[in-house]
Amino acid sequence: MRIVQKYGGTSVGTIEKIKAIAEHLIKVRKEGNEVVVVVSAMGKMTDELIKKANEITNRPDRRELDMLMSTGEQQTIALLSMALKNMGHEAVSLTGSQAGIQTTGTHTKSKIKSINNERMEKHLADGKIVIVAGFQGMNEAGDITTLGRGGSDTSAVALAGALGCQCEIYTDVDGIYTCDPRVHKGAKKIDKISYEEMMEMSNLGAGVMEVRAVELGKKFGVPIYVGRSLGEKNGTYILEKEQIMEEKLITGLSINENVLMVNLQNLYNKPQKIANIFSALGKQDVNVDMISQSQSVEDMVDISFTCPATEEDLLDKAVEIIATQNPALKISKNQDLIKVSVVGVGMISHSGVAGKLFEIFGEKNIKFYQVTTSEISISFTMDKDRKAAAVEAISEAFNI
Amino acid sequence: MRIVQKYGGTSVGTIEKIKAIAEHLIKVRKEGNEVVVVVSAMGKMTDELIKKANEITNRPDRRELDMLMSTGEQQTIALLSMALKNMGHEAVSLTGSQAGIQTTGTHTKSKIKSINNERMEKHLADGKIVIVAGFQGMNEAGDITTLGRGGSDTSAVALAGALGCQCEIYTDVDGIYTCDPRVHKGAKKIDKISYEEMMEMSNLGAGVMEVRAVELGKKFGVPIYVGRSLGEKNGTYILEKEQIMEEKLITGLSINENVLMVNLQNLYNKPQKIANIFSALGKQDVNVDMISQSQSVEDMVDISFTCPATEEDLLDKAVEIIATQNPALKISKNQDLIKVSVVGVGMISHSGVAGKLFEIFGEKNIKFYQVTTSEISISFTMDKDRKAAAVEAISEAFNI
Repeated sequence: MRIVQKYGGTSVGTIEKIKAIAEHLIKVRKEGNEVVVVVSAMGKMTDELIKKANEITNRPDRRELDMLMSTGEQQTIALLSMALKNMGHEAVSLTGSQAGIQTTGTHTKSKIKSINNERMEKHLADGKIVIVAGFQGMNEAGDITTLGRGGSDTSAVALAGALGCQCEIYTDVDGIYTCDPRVHKGAKKIDKISYEEMMEMSNLGAGVMEVRAVELGKKFGVPIYVGRSLGEKNGTYILEKEQIMEEKLITGLSINENVLMVNLQNLYNKPQKIANIFSALGKQDVNVDMISQSQSVEDMVDISFTCPATEEDLLDKAVEIIATQNPALKISKNQDLIKVSVVGVGMISHSGVAGKLFEIFGEKNIKFYQVTTSEISISFTMDKDRKAAAVEAISEAFNI
Repeated sequence: MRIVQKYGGTSVGTIEKIKAIAEHLIKVRKEGNEVVVVVSAMGKMTDELIKKANEITNRPDRRELDMLMSTGEQQTIALLSMALKNMGHEAVSLTGSQAGIQTTGTHTKSKIKSINNERMEKHLADGKIVIVAGFQGMNEAGDITTLGRGGSDTSAVALAGALGCQCEIYTDVDGIYTCDPRVHKGAKKIDKISYEEMMEMSNLGAGVMEVRAVELGKKFGVPIYVGRSLGEKNGTYILEKEQIMEEKLITGLSINENVLMVNLQNLYNKPQKIANIFSALGKQDVNVDMISQSQSVEDMVDISFTCPATEEDLLDKAVEIIATQNPALKISKNQDLIKVSVVGVGMISHSGVAGKLFEIFGEKNIKFYQVTTSEISISFTMDKDRKAAAVEAISEAFNI
């Protein structure tokens, strides 16, 4: 069988860990598998390189930042390949460019455009373990680019797509949970989850997998396994909906604490007025998430929206502009909120989920400010101090 | 004017130094020059990377060692380019491969085969300062290779050859001296030296320039300047013999302290016997330098040879084998020696130099054990404690 395995920064954080991975890979190879390995930079190396760049300037040129950062992964592939060869197994390290990863788009957040797997196929045919630098590729101009946050996961899934095989992501958590185990002790590990559910969960702040990698997995039909490095195979498989036999109504629950809600009261209900407000937010790069609107008095509306709490600086600039344009507007911020999301493909056919949730919240006296729904998720903003109550009530009601 | 400048590891050892070089480069660019810069890895980075590899194995695979080491220069080019761009000047960093440096031969000591300067020419035409990673290139298989000791000097001179311009090597010494200033206080800086003389001096242990770089300079007629970083232009020019107007009889004097002499007494004077001895040394990779032979009694000879003192381990293994094959042989080692070499193109036409040296040594009672000569140099092995006397006598006699 052919496998792409990916090891993150923590998993390759020390020379000892790299040696342990080498031993494990030889075992997997000897079981008759063709192995391609994608690795990240060791430990905190990427952060250290960015720190060096910031000693030059706090706005380093992005092309040069890519040139700099890409050396992190290049060092890991060389060391892992050395370890394998030293243990007597043929191996070859390849930079993103050497592995045929062609990219497009902006430096520091480029996208994979195509993969020319000729060289990898040749090395695999020679019996070698192929080690590829994650997070990087080369664009049409012949410049090194990096793929941004979670880029090594994206590299691994894309390579698995190009090589027609499954992808195993090894990390420091042992799988995908119904809910963050730090928040809810009763959280259960999910054996199988669909791409769609995983994408919702990623978008909603469940940090294990970057959403782009899951999207690519869905696009190319790559089965993705997420689990702990070198452990038993008791992690989570991300698959097509159709491959998941026992479909549960609700797969998981995610909590996002990086939330800030803004209330705008006494706004004239004119489309242009409202458009101007969101245009001001967009110009400051504020990522507006949930929006709700309610009529207050005739011709006037109240609008609430949320954005990441980490974008408060940007938000404040935008709010200043909005206040100037709308002198009568009453503006307030609420920082003591969380966003609770319930995810499950079962929801598409069971419209009862929303009803059941409203019922639970009523019983437990949990107040919520906003609701948004997608085909397979429902999200609520609520007070931070109601988190435990909400998580417990939802977990109990849907058996997650 | 077009210039290739090269800055070594010490010159780019800190972020502050990189910023200072960036400022200097902008000045040179604004004077109307087209600038290509070759840089080494920062400070001791290459050593640190090798140390990491040695934590995996003490015999790291050479292809992977190249993959690892080449990241050092890649980091420097990125940081220097960031600094330039941050100061408002257009710049572009290029890995060896991106700069079109094609290599051949063994990993960790490959050679430059050719340079495709298309991309560099394009960037220069756009007014950019072009920053190239020294010490590295890409071979026909598409693998990263490094050029071995002094490789960045070699990169710089080769690029100057391909771009048809002069090459300036900036280092932590302010030029080439007639003799090591730490050994002889009266040592003088040389303004101009021929490629041939510089090659002899490099071979004889004057460590400023690697001999391969000088050879390339001679081959492509690249004028090379060697001096201190960012200082005044009062270093040394390495040029064609014909470009050096006032030719001196003797250009310089070099002392090599890494010398060990072995005496073999009572050896049968049969070619096969003698060949076996040097073959045993060759098999242990002992670099035999000076060899002298003298008839002792009929059919018997004495042979002395020198090798680097740092190769004593290898030598001892070879001597053991030689002793087993030649039980009657009397073998002794002498470690208290130095090799003194006198270099100068003037020597070709002035056979009197050797005579004069013998005369001086006689006067000053300086005993020497071996003599070897090339067209432009004469070398002697002598006792370590006669170093000061010999250096003074030679400097006085030849006014160096």
